[in-house]
Amino acid sequence: MKVDHQLIIVGGGPAGLTAGLYAARAMLDVTLLEKGAPGGQVLNTDWVDNYPGFPDGLSGFDLADKMTAQTKRFDLEIKQAPVTGMDLQEDVKTLHLEEGGTLTCRAVILATGARPNHIDIPGETEFAARGVSYCATCDAPFYRGRIVAVIGGGNTAIQEASHLTKFADKVYVIHRRDELRATKILQEKAFANDKIEFVWDTVPTAITGDKSGVTGIELKNVKTDKTSSLDVEGVFVLIGLRPNNEMLPMEQLKTKDGFIVTDQEMHTSIPGVFAAGDLISKNFRQIANAVGEATTACLSAEHYLAHLPDE
Amino acid sequence: MKVDHQLIIVGGGPAGLTAGLYAARAMLDVTLLEKGAPGGQVLNTDWVDNYPGFPDGLSGFDLADKMTAQTKRFDLEIKQAPVTGMDLQEDVKTLHLEEGGTLTCRAVILATGARPNHIDIPGETEFAARGVSYCATCDAPFYRGRIVAVIGGGNTAIQEASHLTKFADKVYVIHRRDELRATKILQEKAFANDKIEFVWDTVPTAITGDKSGVTGIELKNVKTDKTSSLDVEGVFVLIGLRPNNEMLPMEQLKTKDGFIVTDQEMHTSIPGVFAAGDLISKNFRQIANAVGEATTACLSAEHYLAHLPDE
Repeated sequence: MKVDHQLIIVGGGPAGLTAGLYAARAMLDVTLLEKGAPGGQVLNTDWVDNYPGFPDGLSGFDLADKMTAQTKRFDLEIKQAPVTGMDLQEDVKTLHLEEGGTLTCRAVILATGARPNHIDIPGETEFAARGVSYCATCDAPFYRGRIVAVIGGGNTAIQEASHLTKFADKVYVIHRRDELRATKILQEKAFANDKIEFVWDTVPTAITGDKSGVTGIELKNVKTDKTSSLDVEGVFVLIGLRPNNEMLPMEQLKTKDGFIVTDQEMHTSIPGVFAAGDLISKNFRQIANAVGEATTACLSAEHYLAHLPDE
Repeated sequence: MKVDHQLIIVGGGPAGLTAGLYAARAMLDVTLLEKGAPGGQVLNTDWVDNYPGFPDGLSGFDLADKMTAQTKRFDLEIKQAPVTGMDLQEDVKTLHLEEGGTLTCRAVILATGARPNHIDIPGETEFAARGVSYCATCDAPFYRGRIVAVIGGGNTAIQEASHLTKFADKVYVIHRRDELRATKILQEKAFANDKIEFVWDTVPTAITGDKSGVTGIELKNVKTDKTSSLDVEGVFVLIGLRPNNEMLPMEQLKTKDGFIVTDQEMHTSIPGVFAAGDLISKNFRQIANAVGEATTACLSAEHYLAHLPDE
């Protein structure tokens, strides 16, 4: 049966672009579908200091631009075409496009990413990447000598709060309850850390700032309704992450908490379907991780296609 | 118990340097031990076209240099100190140095890499990265319109020979036996591919060339002892890979064919011991893979250290 392409990549962040680079360079008949501009979450990242190969770091925009340019050099076709649905279980995979019509292919790489949960308060969007961060591993070193707030009480929030004290002078942990969900040992270390101050039973109501970035956070005690504010130069929102899975046939795929389960070769539970990047079930979501996984996903897809009888 | 460092990274290729970048930037007490110059196999790579972020590609030397400079910006200590042995099973890990003495730590990242098997014939070393390649995924696109030889008969050799026909005008497959070890479907596709010519029962005896690189290969038929030669501009030696595991306590670690078995978070079978890069058991060994795995290995090591009671 004739298909439109051998391989379709869904998503144009670092994972999708890396898979696209490898596929195009390998002369596969491939197309990449992206709902917006290539780059994904990286476009919202002010400065990337920890992607190996750039001694001085570079802006997220610049990195996205370089990755896209590299795919273009190998003539990768990138289409701005949101995908609304997929049938993946047959040998021929069918993708449904928002603009109407379908595209068929033999192999698919899912790389639609994820997005951090927001607290949805005034100032959050305005100061994103100018003091509001969703990744302490990425951004903690930028807060040397500063005062910052962490929103959250889970393992990530508490481990990252401790991590932040290596750089920041003081870390407030704002938590809506009066106890943490984090594991005991992380709690004990955080309680023993004199740079960390817990603000219990409290939710943020607004992030304030000026042209230079964040200057403070407004708070409300959920038990007393009393309001207060803190002077901080950074707000780390560490309350989880949601996969961009709305267009995926979740009932066909093995998933965990909405993220796609893969093996170490980035096979999903469906033959011919691979996944990489923030969309997959895993512990760490750095750009370098996405790039590595996507390389594997593409080479696994090539291997799959090379072993198809009618290919 | 007092240790010399929280974390020691063994090996300074892209995996080791990436783990070192993440560890140093996270302010861990870390040191990286490398037997030679930082960069690893990448230093032997003429041109890297498929590491995402460099639209025009860059030399292997340049990439190694950039990765090293990035770790220096975060003050990573890199010691030229070959490791001769390790005791990994206790909570405190001990590394034995060739120069004498030991270093102790709580967590270790193993990133000693691997090396391609060589055919050990005249010209092989002389023309390395000037026509002799050990990676068709990496180098095939550089041979557009050329005539090349593949040495080997396994899955990798045959899949890569087919891959090479997308670029090269003709691909000779030189194999010492009169049948292939590759899977049936790969064989059938290769036999049906009119750009591939098999040279059976034959071993290479020398690679010849001039200042511009490889120009030919000398052959001997192992049944008839008859010698011959072929005009080729590239020789792909695809006869497997050996892990650099000589200094590892292999009896303590779960391994497969000499490579270290890890889970998806780069834990080895020993708590506190992580591994990344070409040393681990896996299908694909691109720089991007090593970088992604090392990022995970370091973040897993951080997580491990954060959960140690006495840390």
